[in-house]
Amino acid sequence: MTHTVKAMLETHPIGSGSVDQEKLAACIAVCFECAQVCTACADACLSEEMVADLTACIRKNLDCADICAATGNVLSRQTGSNTEVLRAQLQSCMVACRACGDECAQHADMHEHCKVCAEACHRCEQGQVPGSGVAILR
Amino acid sequence: MTHTVKAMLETHPIGSGSVDQEKLAACIAVCFECAQVCTACADACLSEEMVADLTACIRKNLDCADICAATGNVLSRQTGSNTEVLRAQLQSCMVACRACGDECAQHADMHEHCKVCAEACHRCEQGQVPGSGVAILR
Amino acid sequence: MTHTVKAMLETHPIGSGSVDQEKLAACIAVCFECAQVCTACADACLSEEMVADLTACIRKNLDCADICAATGNVLSRQTGSNTEVLRAQLQSCMVACRACGDECAQHADMHEHCKVCAEACHRCEQGQVPGSGVAILR
Amino acid sequence: MTHTVKAMLETHPIGSGSVDQEKLAACIAVCFECAQVCTACADACLSEEMVADLTACIRKNLDCADICAATGNVLSRQTGSNTEVLRAQLQSCMVACRACGDECAQHADMHEHCKVCAEACHRCEQGQVPGSGVAILR
Repeated sequence: MTHTVKAMLETHPIGSGSVDQEKLAACIAVCFECAQVCTACADACLSEEMVADLTACIRKNLDCADICAATGNVLSRQTGSNTEVLRAQLQSCMVACRACGDECAQHADMHEHCKVCAEACHRCEQGQVPGSGVAILR
Repeated sequence: MTHTVKAMLETHPIGSGSVDQEKLAACIAVCFECAQVCTACADACLSEEMVADLTACIRKNLDCADICAATGNVLSRQTGSNTEVLRAQLQSCMVACRACGDECAQHADMHEHCKVCAEACHRCEQGQVPGSGVAILR
Repeated sequence: MTHTVKAMLETHPIGSGSVDQEKLAACIAVCFECAQVCTACADACLSEEMVADLTACIRKNLDCADICAATGNVLSRQTGSNTEVLRAQLQSCMVACRACGDECAQHADMHEHCKVCAEACHRCEQGQVPGSGVAILR
Repeated sequence: MTHTVKAMLETHPIGSGSVDQEKLAACIAVCFECAQVCTACADACLSEEMVADLTACIRKNLDCADICAATGNVLSRQTGSNTEVLRAQLQSCMVACRACGDECAQHADMHEHCKVCAEACHRCEQGQVPGSGVAILR
């Protein structure tokens, strides 16, 4: 996905302004990755026999999915300037990824999908790929 | 819409916790209203002859629509607790509504749809209906 | 919400073409109503003690919420023409509302939120308010 | 992204049923890729000097983005069974990708972002990577 994200930034008539294009592309890609993983993790938790013990996790998954998807969309736009909004939404995305990642990390030993999800949330928040996470762009 | 939002809060096995149910229902309803209005305003601007002068407005409309929709979804969930995330997303929603509302207010004399949109953004941010806006819940 | 939806249609530079504006406004409003109710019903089911018996219901709720939100957005746009897409998405929305409504109706005696949700899905599909449902516009 | 999508399918307690996991993962990934590219293409068109000639394209971009995102979410869920809904939404996604891809292809010579977008829409509809497009899963 990062490949097409980068291609779209490179072909934009305005470009990404003062923001590093590599970092921005990586950041957009991890937002969409995290949105998908959180949606899938909510669903995987739902199919666990012990679903009753995972409802707080599912809730955080669903919130994080919605917030990451919105953040990915806002980041994908370069027209005009909406810096204050971008900053506030990146802040919310960081908080959501931390809350969901921390929750999933608690079930990571028992549920492999929570482990994958905790890692995706952490990547989206902090950026395991250097410069990819929303923490860096905020 | 407020009617069904309230019905869903009243029939929730947990309820809305310490949050006033009337205020929460009004807040959820204005988020979805604002999301729809911003989507429609972006499209109306797009159909104006002078669209080239409205591109910054369209961008803010689209960002605000995405953020309000995500906020409305997060607010609609009562399972577990995700307070810090809720607060950060409400903050982002306030900022997005202010940015979009201020932009639309500048075109309100010329474009009636921008006037309706500025009002919806203002309602979502501050709450013209007492206690309806995201500023109150944050 | 129908009030502002209608206001946005009336102030659109193009308008709603050959489509009846009252019907279109009602249809858009029920799509967003249904999206919110399905999101809330998924969350209410998640908070039930017997959540393990409601997982198929939650899944249908979440699918229906996503599809109704996308449909509400597509319906809110009048620029250009995208009739074939609109028709296919309305078809999918009908199918999703029927599937979710039928599922929720089975739990309506036991869970009041499923009853409210079944009604919202039915309104969105068929239109209890004459001319409001996606079945009529398709 | 395909890597994490696949990891989530592999760690799901139910799995992807009778559907080929490779194909499903590829299909989910192209849906999210196409959603992002369409959002970015709408924004790039908005920043073109000749934006007034691109409004029909922007509208199709925005519709396609909403529909692909919803489709990617529905495809990401394996709990219960919602086959009829999945099929109808895949059908709508095919139609939206074709409409947007055809429109973008007309501007591909002039606008590189439309070329990238036309390719992403085509991949999502038909699958350039064998077995990746929604046409195959429907």
